[in-house]
Amino acid sequence: MERPAIILLSGGLDSATVLAMARAEGFVPHTLSFRYGQRHAVELAAAERVARHQKVARHVVADIDLRVFGGSALTDDIDVPKDSTPEQMAAGIPVTYVPARNTVFLSFALAYAEVTGATDIFTGVNAVDYSGYPDCRPEYLKAYEAMANLATRAAVEGDRPIRIHAPLVRMTKGEIIRTGLGLGVDYSLTSSCYDPDERGRACGRCDTCALRLKGFAEAGVTDPVPYRGGGS
Amino acid sequence: MERPAIILLSGGLDSATVLAMARAEGFVPHTLSFRYGQRHAVELAAAERVARHQKVARHVVADIDLRVFGGSALTDDIDVPKDSTPEQMAAGIPVTYVPARNTVFLSFALAYAEVTGATDIFTGVNAVDYSGYPDCRPEYLKAYEAMANLATRAAVEGDRPIRIHAPLVRMTKGEIIRTGLGLGVDYSLTSSCYDPDERGRACGRCDTCALRLKGFAEAGVTDPVPYRGGGS
Repeated sequence: MERPAIILLSGGLDSATVLAMARAEGFVPHTLSFRYGQRHAVELAAAERVARHQKVARHVVADIDLRVFGGSALTDDIDVPKDSTPEQMAAGIPVTYVPARNTVFLSFALAYAEVTGATDIFTGVNAVDYSGYPDCRPEYLKAYEAMANLATRAAVEGDRPIRIHAPLVRMTKGEIIRTGLGLGVDYSLTSSCYDPDERGRACGRCDTCALRLKGFAEAGVTDPVPYRGGGS
Repeated sequence: MERPAIILLSGGLDSATVLAMARAEGFVPHTLSFRYGQRHAVELAAAERVARHQKVARHVVADIDLRVFGGSALTDDIDVPKDSTPEQMAAGIPVTYVPARNTVFLSFALAYAEVTGATDIFTGVNAVDYSGYPDCRPEYLKAYEAMANLATRAAVEGDRPIRIHAPLVRMTKGEIIRTGLGLGVDYSLTSSCYDPDERGRACGRCDTCALRLKGFAEAGVTDPVPYRGGGS
């Protein structure tokens, strides 16, 4: 019997890896990306490339506008932080934090799951590199799952519980990349940079670029995406 | 000290009452409505009227598009059910159910709360009249609150927990209306009908009209909104 699953797909390397892991577990993937006023819209094009390459059953882009509330560098005109030290990144909640982002994203995934008849939702959240984000922690994900099992038609009428899968939550970037390469993920299709140029080339200096480059170094392979100014 | 609160405001009579209750408790209200592809967009105008009449600090309308997933009479082209018996209404999940709606709405409220510095969120959900909606039950709201307290900056850094207030959850429609009238709510500004005509007149026959009319009858007052064809 086909088991559909919803996979949150950002276009970055984490969610591309999660998609491959869901497929390897036998799920039929339905992917979900968001147009949420982000400055790095190039990630939506990456998500679509990844979805096509991994042959998903359906790829949906949902429009949400978190800008109406204000409050984050990714959606406002605050400068993206560059050249942070690992200490700075670990020190607190990053200014690139979008309010309640994973809660909003998972809630849309839950709506998509209900309509699709899926009871499994996959997210690429990671508590190792992003310890400053409260909604990337395992205890948060457990609480979300408990709530989801009281929220939906499936919880009332169904015979299978909702499961929130976060297979990367305790993996390092190097481990994630090695896992993805083993499953055939093409990382040249992904995009992680918070501040790409108009040709989609990564800056090599923002926090996600720094983590990505460190991950590829750990995995012992070269990042296939283009960087401007020799960042890779 | 001013205590801001987020109030989900649909334009119906329940949330107009909740707004008045939050004000009576001393909260400074910030209201939130959604443009979510609903056919009854007249409710957005009602929400704005209610927000203005009750002098809220800020009223935000967020765009979300649950139609990308399909699956409900309120956003698709399925017929709105009319002339249901109370037994039919209580028998199961209504076809007007929007997938994961309250979870999505509360998640946006949580984002708004974070940005506003509020730790209190008010919703008009009601488990008496809408027992068929899984996400209107007290146990769901408790689980949502537990999740929210792990999800946000306030949960990590703040000294006050997030609270989800659902003051109507166990009240009958008649009790809600009597409470609102006691607090000065002008119900002529509200709109509940799932199928209003182009002049905004209620049908008097859909499930929400039926519940509303029954509530006013219980409260012993006449519903001030216009109905077409003598429904009131």
